[in-house]
Amino acid sequence: MSRIAYVNGRYLPHRLARVHVEDRGFQFADAVYEVIAIRRGAFVDEDRHLARLTRSRGVLALAAPMSEAALKLVIRETVRRNRVGDGIVYLQLSRGAAPRDFAFPAHTRPSLVITVRHMRIADPRLVAEGIAVITVPDQRWKRPDVKSVSLLPNVLAKQRAKEAGAYEAWQIDAQGNVSEGTSSNAWIVSAADEVITRQADTSILKGVTRMAVFDILARKGLRLVERPFSVAEAMAAREAMLTSATNGVLPVVRIDGAPVGDGRPGPLALSLAAAYRAFMDGEA
Amino acid sequence: MSRIAYVNGRYLPHRLARVHVEDRGFQFADAVYEVIAIRRGAFVDEDRHLARLTRSRGVLALAAPMSEAALKLVIRETVRRNRVGDGIVYLQLSRGAAPRDFAFPAHTRPSLVITVRHMRIADPRLVAEGIAVITVPDQRWKRPDVKSVSLLPNVLAKQRAKEAGAYEAWQIDAQGNVSEGTSSNAWIVSAADEVITRQADTSILKGVTRMAVFDILARKGLRLVERPFSVAEAMAAREAMLTSATNGVLPVVRIDGAPVGDGRPGPLALSLAAAYRAFMDGEA
Repeated sequence: MSRIAYVNGRYLPHRLARVHVEDRGFQFADAVYEVIAIRRGAFVDEDRHLARLTRSRGVLALAAPMSEAALKLVIRETVRRNRVGDGIVYLQLSRGAAPRDFAFPAHTRPSLVITVRHMRIADPRLVAEGIAVITVPDQRWKRPDVKSVSLLPNVLAKQRAKEAGAYEAWQIDAQGNVSEGTSSNAWIVSAADEVITRQADTSILKGVTRMAVFDILARKGLRLVERPFSVAEAMAAREAMLTSATNGVLPVVRIDGAPVGDGRPGPLALSLAAAYRAFMDGEA
Repeated sequence: MSRIAYVNGRYLPHRLARVHVEDRGFQFADAVYEVIAIRRGAFVDEDRHLARLTRSRGVLALAAPMSEAALKLVIRETVRRNRVGDGIVYLQLSRGAAPRDFAFPAHTRPSLVITVRHMRIADPRLVAEGIAVITVPDQRWKRPDVKSVSLLPNVLAKQRAKEAGAYEAWQIDAQGNVSEGTSSNAWIVSAADEVITRQADTSILKGVTRMAVFDILARKGLRLVERPFSVAEAMAAREAMLTSATNGVLPVVRIDGAPVGDGRPGPLALSLAAAYRAFMDGEA
């Protein structure tokens, strides 16, 4: 658990870290966030996360709380005060507190909250065993490319996965294609050794780990194809996997109870997981 | 502005009314709410609002914070402490604070926040003048029948309306039909004197004021038709209007800049607004 949280200019003990009941993050989901992994005290892909934060802010016309240089300092100070070497930084920026009204308030300072938590990033046990996913209808709003806290459908889908004994839920669009997980991007490997993941248009979040894996694929000379894939195609795929900042690359070994391939982590997924771990360690 | 807010068992000065930064309402939009009008110290349609709260809670498997009888007492005490005769009670129930994880936490007490504000309900000036709406694509998640705080698309749509000099935005579904406003239901009156509003399936919120207007229509012997209507049909309609707990019945006189009928509030909308005001006063 986070011991010290940064809340609007103050470093507070976790239990005293609060926002106003009229914060628009609480009343309207009018807020964006990022989760950045910390590996041996270093931030993994921090610049890409902060660039995405800027993009999310831009779509919502949400003001920056401070310069990016200042933000980096505050992130570092929050991590230092929590003495976390391996874990995550959670950063949430809302439009601030104002008398409740749907339209943007005229004069409101954005709220910035930063928490830090110890966590095992890209857990080797999960990589070795692989994980199960279920499929659920994609019920989200039409701009999941914006990393907002509008996460209620993701919550409900993840809960369904948990109740089904699975690790993640893949959300299925109206065309029967996999959009993405509730907090991860979805991938498959075809019989022709193509590594397939959905193109990052407005239908999915442009994952930072997804981009890091693109870099790895290019270095390894592997063939990347960005296109939608169906549930049937995923079930018949040679391998499947997911990516996220906290999980790195995780082999997916079951979809809706049916095994992918022989039901064990695929060699390509394992190789990418190892390469991603090496990349993280290189940042440290 | 609310002077005293109820937050998880305590009556606090408004500026000190806070929730934890890991409240799931703040991090996941994992919360539901209701807005109940107060007219001369009485609650307008309180039981229907509380029944809807129970339904919203049920869909999300969100526990009740207390019995309905106790909740009514807390609402009354909060209103009493704020000395508001005409205004609104805002009530928000979240799944509570817990270490951040998408799936439901095992042991968390729901958070209940109640604020009260003075406000002119069903403002006669707005009724007399009518209001303008714009149309925008419906970008919301697929369960707007649940009154959750997953309101970011509504915020963006209302802001567009404000910037266009309009009062409300009507959200248009993939079939070109009006689903509803960002915080109100949408209605038209046809040349055949049918009063038309969308059926309350999972695509819209089942408005409490909408139901009160159903009662009025029945008493007046007017013909109600529950079905979707297109933007073109709305623009060609004899009258248009919206309903909400804070607005009562409001004539809509412009859609995307074009006048509805002769561009003035229609006689049926005005008659329903008056009947709704009489209903509110009858509650008082």
